[in-house]
Amino acid sequence: MTKTLQVLLAERPTGLPTADTWSVVTTELPPLTAGQMLVKISFISLDPAMRGWLNDVRSYLPPVGIGEVMRALDIGTVVESRHPDFAVGDTVSGTFGVTEYAISDGRGVQRVDLNAASGPTWLGALGMPGMTAYFGLLEVGKLQPGDTVLVSAAAGAVGSVAGQIAKAKGATVIGIAGGAEKCRMLTEELGFDAAIDYRAGNVLRQVREVAPDGIDIYFDNVGGEILDAALANLRRGARVVLCGAISAYNEQKPPPGPSRYMSLLVFRASMIGFVVFDYADRYPEAGAQLARWLAEGRIKSREHVVEGGVAQFGDTLNMLFTGANTGKLVLAL
Amino acid sequence: MTKTLQVLLAERPTGLPTADTWSVVTTELPPLTAGQMLVKISFISLDPAMRGWLNDVRSYLPPVGIGEVMRALDIGTVVESRHPDFAVGDTVSGTFGVTEYAISDGRGVQRVDLNAASGPTWLGALGMPGMTAYFGLLEVGKLQPGDTVLVSAAAGAVGSVAGQIAKAKGATVIGIAGGAEKCRMLTEELGFDAAIDYRAGNVLRQVREVAPDGIDIYFDNVGGEILDAALANLRRGARVVLCGAISAYNEQKPPPGPSRYMSLLVFRASMIGFVVFDYADRYPEAGAQLARWLAEGRIKSREHVVEGGVAQFGDTLNMLFTGANTGKLVLAL
Repeated sequence: MTKTLQVLLAERPTGLPTADTWSVVTTELPPLTAGQMLVKISFISLDPAMRGWLNDVRSYLPPVGIGEVMRALDIGTVVESRHPDFAVGDTVSGTFGVTEYAISDGRGVQRVDLNAASGPTWLGALGMPGMTAYFGLLEVGKLQPGDTVLVSAAAGAVGSVAGQIAKAKGATVIGIAGGAEKCRMLTEELGFDAAIDYRAGNVLRQVREVAPDGIDIYFDNVGGEILDAALANLRRGARVVLCGAISAYNEQKPPPGPSRYMSLLVFRASMIGFVVFDYADRYPEAGAQLARWLAEGRIKSREHVVEGGVAQFGDTLNMLFTGANTGKLVLAL
Repeated sequence: MTKTLQVLLAERPTGLPTADTWSVVTTELPPLTAGQMLVKISFISLDPAMRGWLNDVRSYLPPVGIGEVMRALDIGTVVESRHPDFAVGDTVSGTFGVTEYAISDGRGVQRVDLNAASGPTWLGALGMPGMTAYFGLLEVGKLQPGDTVLVSAAAGAVGSVAGQIAKAKGATVIGIAGGAEKCRMLTEELGFDAAIDYRAGNVLRQVREVAPDGIDIYFDNVGGEILDAALANLRRGARVVLCGAISAYNEQKPPPGPSRYMSLLVFRASMIGFVVFDYADRYPEAGAQLARWLAEGRIKSREHVVEGGVAQFGDTLNMLFTGANTGKLVLAL
């Protein structure tokens, strides 16, 4: 019998999650049955989308139930196996949740090679954020060489990869981030052509100054006023790729929505929502390409690793909503 | 020398246009020069888009200038010609403006056949509203047989044709209109499968009742709360076609925008703006198809003809914003 600490959803938050949102419990896992394996978790992914999974509304995934282990992607090691395809010692990624140990039947589990990339990178540039950036830009946004691409939350896990993919594909890339330090990183370390600090003044005017001819793709991770600033600066035929809306995730009332949405008509533009899971059968293609770009140094992975136990999950998650992280936020157990 | 009454833009309105918005003047037109013709106007088209042309903002057409003749589409008769392609007696359509007589060099002018359809129909189902409905649904919305299509302002010039095109193409069609009488017309005369009276209660719930499996295309002419109601009822892969936003045209502050726009992500849907002028080279194709459907009785043209002089233009235009018209609104001189 394996004992494990786990974080359960205790109650649904109405705004920013608090200590009351979570309960940390010790659970005894039952013995493995045939076809199962026991995974010891080393890294837990923290994602803005998690906030949405806490709401009791119809969405692209069912909400996490009260009393259930919080859903999360993880990297771990197989420590016991009755599964034909996984052996003790294998490093694996999967949706094991916020837990120290998990029993898995192997569904949705991938073997990962720590010689090729670190655990946090497998959760970041080579994980869901990388896939999201890849398919969002190339398939949904239909990126063309020469496009001017604007990315919000550009210092975050998805945005930082999206901007670098766009550069690798021959676009001009402008990132929006909070604070001079993140902006400096975008232009000096990640190769963005320009960076806009949304805390430093009117974003609409800043975008207009940096991209006076308008933008072809806006990759939106934030929603709110920044989405409106982008809509005011589209070029004809532009694509607004809706990846997230982190500015709204903790609002207790629905936020007002993009008042400039009729720019889509003026500019013959489109706003397109997507969910990366729809591209699951093409993850291998994207993963191989991203790994090549990483190996060639055309994409740099940025991770923000917090060391602690699963009990630190709640505080760590909230770092996403205050902008405390740069790059992929990971809890290392 | 021909004297003509004309309506000029006197000042830009901040809300609903008033008497002060317009000045009615008598102008003496100069003699024709080579390549010109004189057109006597019989029908002036009134379009919601006109309200946008009065604002001094960058859009898909330049704004009408202060002191300029108000831009309008018209049907008229050539009464004098020094143009090689048009003869006295020809009935023509063109952007002649709000005027009794206009001098034209023939650019953008089409000959129309009053034996095939009446002047108001040439401004309605066979004119820009028909083209807008046709390309908006078929090209922008990519209508498929079996789709469930929701149309707002469905008793208006564009909406009434859009709904009937969708029916002709094998879709299930739901119209939204204001009042029981318009709703009755949609289902009993125009063949809509269902009609929703937006004045009779919560539109979101009414759409859900009529289309419990969601909608594939929302053809939006109104914006505002009805757009949000549609966004809450999308089906996976839905297309929201942005044709207009009449609920906002006379607002003095930008309205809040669709707060449910993130439904686009949940439903992997897109919101697409378009301007019918981009399809100008395909107007003949659309016109021929619409004429066939009219002749076959698969599409019925509804027109609301107000008889009067050009001085009635301002009051007639405002009928669009109070919903006083059913079908294409036309001023017959």
